[in-house]
Amino acid sequence: MSSSHPRAAPAPPRQRPRKRAGRRPGESGTRAAILAAATRHFAQRGYDRASLRAIAAEAGVDHRLIVHFFGSKQRLFVAAVGLPLDPAEIVPRILAGDRAGLGERVEEFVLAVLERPEIHARLAGVVRAAASEPQVARMLREFLGRELFARAAELIGRDDGALRVNLAAAQLVGLIVARYVVGVEPLASLPPATVAPRVARAITSHLVDPL
Amino acid sequence: MSSSHPRAAPAPPRQRPRKRAGRRPGESGTRAAILAAATRHFAQRGYDRASLRAIAAEAGVDHRLIVHFFGSKQRLFVAAVGLPLDPAEIVPRILAGDRAGLGERVEEFVLAVLERPEIHARLAGVVRAAASEPQVARMLREFLGRELFARAAELIGRDDGALRVNLAAAQLVGLIVARYVVGVEPLASLPPATVAPRVARAITSHLVDPL
Repeated sequence: MSSSHPRAAPAPPRQRPRKRAGRRPGESGTRAAILAAATRHFAQRGYDRASLRAIAAEAGVDHRLIVHFFGSKQRLFVAAVGLPLDPAEIVPRILAGDRAGLGERVEEFVLAVLERPEIHARLAGVVRAAASEPQVARMLREFLGRELFARAAELIGRDDGALRVNLAAAQLVGLIVARYVVGVEPLASLPPATVAPRVARAITSHLVDPL
Repeated sequence: MSSSHPRAAPAPPRQRPRKRAGRRPGESGTRAAILAAATRHFAQRGYDRASLRAIAAEAGVDHRLIVHFFGSKQRLFVAAVGLPLDPAEIVPRILAGDRAGLGERVEEFVLAVLERPEIHARLAGVVRAAASEPQVARMLREFLGRELFARAAELIGRDDGALRVNLAAAQLVGLIVARYVVGVEPLASLPPATVAPRVARAITSHLVDPL
């Protein structure tokens, strides 16, 4: 369930201590400069209007370096926002397989979210940021609309596919808020194996059950 | 679907213009003073440890006046936090009737939330506050645990009743975040009549479907 691209890190720690100010920062410093520029740029312009060239210019690097480090605008966004997994990779993987195994793949995914703090703590952080900063909400809305919902709808192959994925995502976000942000009991304290099947069933139902 | 108790209003507007400073504030002023004291008190002490007497002392009024205006600690909380409806009244009403009509009652409720901006806009505000202020999250967690989930679990009459209501609430909160806070499309633009049945089905399933 982990994403295969480089994980987000606003300022990757250097392994060696930096002793001299003004020293050329090297690869991790360049990566951090790109991420910082991308974070500002996405917040100011949203996802749709952001361009790798403009971000590269702001970071003072060639835009091919961004492609080298991050692969695409989509992956750069995932890293800049600190999403712990790339929904544009996860969701097609879940939806693409056979329909009979869908529920199981969803449950496996939910279980991974609940079991791994590096995933759910970051998701909770993104939800907090989206709830308090309209700019974050906007860039998430644009990113999810362009990179996730439209593609997922095609995979579901129904006219209402996009709405179905919206509601599945809403169920996941509600779980994050209830369990990790507000911390309602008993949900917050129950083991992942108890919670995941129930949430997975609701998500699967949103995705494919006839109305 | 509207709650029958006085609606929350941090500072109820006076009908007549106030011309003289220092004038005795009258009923609406007293109510506002109680709400202000309650808001501070709940935030500082949480819901469980807050007491009407301490809030009355802080507001400089007799605690019977709080009972007169708000009825109970639970209702005072609902008013102070700005909840547009009292979950401790709504949920038993939905759960208490015949099982066969449950889905319909849930759908009616979800429809009312979606159709009435004075409800969903306030819910979105409470979610935002809970996401950015740990004190708000704590008092909500305590309030919901004491006044809602335990009672609802009894009405559902299953060992896992509280978890079921937790998950139903999570689905509603996720809808609020996705539709009103982040604004994902098409969910954010579709009419309530399209969205409500799908969300209601998921909530009803959480509440009563066998595992």
